[in-house]
Amino acid sequence: MSKLPKIAIILSGNGVYDGAEIHEATMTMYAIVKLGGEYQIFAPDMEQHHVINHITGEEMVEKRNVLIESARIARGNIKALSELKVADYNAIMFPGGFGVAKNLSSFAFDGADCTVIPDVERIIMEAVQASKPIGALCISPAIVAKVLEGVRVTIGQDAETAEALSKMGSSHVNTDHGEVTIDDDFKVATTPCYMLDATIVDIANGAMNVTKAVFEMIE
Amino acid sequence: MSKLPKIAIILSGNGVYDGAEIHEATMTMYAIVKLGGEYQIFAPDMEQHHVINHITGEEMVEKRNVLIESARIARGNIKALSELKVADYNAIMFPGGFGVAKNLSSFAFDGADCTVIPDVERIIMEAVQASKPIGALCISPAIVAKVLEGVRVTIGQDAETAEALSKMGSSHVNTDHGEVTIDDDFKVATTPCYMLDATIVDIANGAMNVTKAVFEMIE
Repeated sequence: MSKLPKIAIILSGNGVYDGAEIHEATMTMYAIVKLGGEYQIFAPDMEQHHVINHITGEEMVEKRNVLIESARIARGNIKALSELKVADYNAIMFPGGFGVAKNLSSFAFDGADCTVIPDVERIIMEAVQASKPIGALCISPAIVAKVLEGVRVTIGQDAETAEALSKMGSSHVNTDHGEVTIDDDFKVATTPCYMLDATIVDIANGAMNVTKAVFEMIE
Repeated sequence: MSKLPKIAIILSGNGVYDGAEIHEATMTMYAIVKLGGEYQIFAPDMEQHHVINHITGEEMVEKRNVLIESARIARGNIKALSELKVADYNAIMFPGGFGVAKNLSSFAFDGADCTVIPDVERIIMEAVQASKPIGALCISPAIVAKVLEGVRVTIGQDAETAEALSKMGSSHVNTDHGEVTIDDDFKVATTPCYMLDATIVDIANGAMNVTKAVFEMIE
């Protein structure tokens, strides 16, 4: 492992129901710095699939941009996903949130038949080709599974989601709070976070454990 | 201290430049649960002062509601600030962010001559009258200082802000990362967080330390 691992974090908006899950994103950033690494945040410069009122769960008549909204979590220090060169980083991490399933992919609507946006597909493929680890929290393992057929991942214990992953050819492992599933061949580490009924302390533990697993796989 | 302290967290939006600072809010929630407490999140049901593009720093031609945006950090579990009964909680905590100085008060525009929205003023006064502690991060000590003349607080080391606090009659203490200033009479604990050039680990430390100080003052 290099002395100061540089991790690219990929966000999908700002808010669990239409973007990146805020606690998972924050706790991933924290874990990286706490473990002696540094991060750069990226998000796609594209319109969000929709905007959800997080109190009512209803759609709002608004348009928001994934990059601009993700910048709120990043305190402005963010780059467009198209600029992400895998060669510049030691690992890639995906916090969760419905943005992963609605903006980075169509998993929320199409399940196993979903598409993943080209930049995310490219980055996952390049990471694997360069033997660089990928960490994925919550629902993010779904997009990793879509790109990497046969990968071993966890999204916790939700039977329907696990079945969709199996349909994509992935091998799903049931896990509990804070547990990490590792695929040594693909160098993919995953943890369920808010795919379980979790507290914010569970999220912090999951983010820390999956980040540790990612750091250990950095060559 | 009661066995399961209940803390009311007051948010001011979702994003450092026009709302609540996301890392400070998240780390405050984490610290409360980690220390054995529980929290309920509140925010005022009002229009944000403005909406800032967090990449460019420029104002966007949009309107957003403080309560609805804060709900993103709260994952939907939030109540209107008008419903906050101090009697139901053991302590009150204010994460920072410009929302405190633009939505909860006019401190960003009027400095020492600012006004504080009536619900925040009421809650701070009721907390003091009931001898319940108040924790404030980052710029939030400014609104506490406006309501509680003569209170001893820190906002870190920014001379201009410290001068505004002194003008309000407050006694300002310079502090570094993670340090907490306590006013034993008013039961107010404050810490600078992103008022200093801080990392996310500094924020976690500051939030944990100020939350510990708040817990210790709960009767």
